[in-house]
Amino acid sequence: MRFMHGRIPVETASRFQTINVTSKIANWLKEINAHNGILVVYSPHTTATVTVNEAESGLMDDILEVLKQLTYYGKQWKHNRIDNNAHAHLGSILVGNSIIIPVVEGRMELGTWQQVLFIEMDGPRRRTLRLYYLGE
Amino acid sequence: MRFMHGRIPVETASRFQTINVTSKIANWLKEINAHNGILVVYSPHTTATVTVNEAESGLMDDILEVLKQLTYYGKQWKHNRIDNNAHAHLGSILVGNSIIIPVVEGRMELGTWQQVLFIEMDGPRRRTLRLYYLGE
Amino acid sequence: MRFMHGRIPVETASRFQTINVTSKIANWLKEINAHNGILVVYSPHTTATVTVNEAESGLMDDILEVLKQLTYYGKQWKHNRIDNNAHAHLGSILVGNSIIIPVVEGRMELGTWQQVLFIEMDGPRRRTLRLYYLGE
Repeated sequence: MRFMHGRIPVETASRFQTINVTSKIANWLKEINAHNGILVVYSPHTTATVTVNEAESGLMDDILEVLKQLTYYGKQWKHNRIDNNAHAHLGSILVGNSIIIPVVEGRMELGTWQQVLFIEMDGPRRRTLRLYYLGE
Repeated sequence: MRFMHGRIPVETASRFQTINVTSKIANWLKEINAHNGILVVYSPHTTATVTVNEAESGLMDDILEVLKQLTYYGKQWKHNRIDNNAHAHLGSILVGNSIIIPVVEGRMELGTWQQVLFIEMDGPRRRTLRLYYLGE
Repeated sequence: MRFMHGRIPVETASRFQTINVTSKIANWLKEINAHNGILVVYSPHTTATVTVNEAESGLMDDILEVLKQLTYYGKQWKHNRIDNNAHAHLGSILVGNSIIIPVVEGRMELGTWQQVLFIEMDGPRRRTLRLYYLGE
C-alpha cells in the first residue's frame, strides 16, 4: 500500500469560474503509476472548491449562478466587515472542499458524464489543488 | 491492506425519490469479508446521488422538496437548452456524489439514526452505486 | 499501513453553534503517532455536522444564518410532525456529515485559512466526533 501526494496549479481568470481539471488529474495518476486505490482531490482554499459533475458549458455557468443565489451574493454578511467574500466561503461549505475518486488500474472510475470541476468564487487568483493517492 | 470494489443496482420509480440502501451495502461488506477500514459509496451519476441521514418517511420527502427549492426546479437554466434536468445536476453538486463510511469489525460505523439514502432527481432510471473498500 | 480510530467529545451550548475543533483533532493525531495518510472526521449525528473553512467569528455566524435560510427554518416540514428539527437534518445533508483531511508527517494538511468547524443545528447537546486514520 502506497501513499503519494502532489499538486496541480489552477489559474483562474475572473471572480466566478468553473474549470474542468480532469485531464490534469489523470496525468498526475499516470506520473505516479497509480494502480488500485482512492484519490483525494483536496482544495486548500476557503473560497474555491472542487466537485464532480458534467462539464457542459451551460451547466458550468448554472453552477456559478446557483451558488450566487444560495449564498445571497451581495448580502451584507458579517464576514464582509473584514473581507468582501462571505459568499465564496459559504459556497465552499455547501459544495465541500474535497472529493474522493476511486482509482482502478490507474484510471479514475468516473461515471460516463462525470468530470472534475474546479469552482472559483473569489478570483482571479492562482490556486492549487492537492492530490493524495492511497492504494496499491 | 486490501482494496475491494463492487456495485449495487438501484432501480428508481419516479422522477424524484429517496431510497434507503443501507442493507444492500451491509450485505456487500459481509460478502467481501470486510474487517477494519473505510468504505466509499460512490454515485457515478450526475443527476442522482447519495447521502447519510435518517430514513424517516417525512424527512425522505422533505429532502426532495428542499432540493427542488434550492435548485429552482422549473427555472430556465442554461443547461436545460440541451437537457431538461439542470436541477438534478445542481442538486447532486450540493449534496455531493459520494460518502465515506468507516467500517469496524465488518460493520458500518453509522450513528444511531444514520442510514444511507440514495437520492434520485431525474428518474425513473436504472441506477448503480459503486462500492470501494480500503482496509484490513 | 495502519487503521486507527478514536472519538472526541463536543459539547454545544445553544441550538445553533459553530465550534472550532481543529486543535482537538491535531492532539489526537499526535496521540496515535500518525505519519502519512488520510483522516476521516465523521459526525455520527443527523442534525449536526462538520466542515472545513475559516474560523472567523463573523463567518461562523454567517454559516448558521445561511443554513437557517436554505433549510427554511420555521417551515412546517413533514419531518416536524414527529420531531421539530427537519432544518437540522436538511442542513446536515447540504454540508455533508464527514470530511477527509490528508495527513503528512503527522500533521493535517490544511490550507492557510482552513480550520475544522463543528456545526450544531439542534443543540444544546453532548455530541461526539469520530476520527479514523488510515495510513502509515
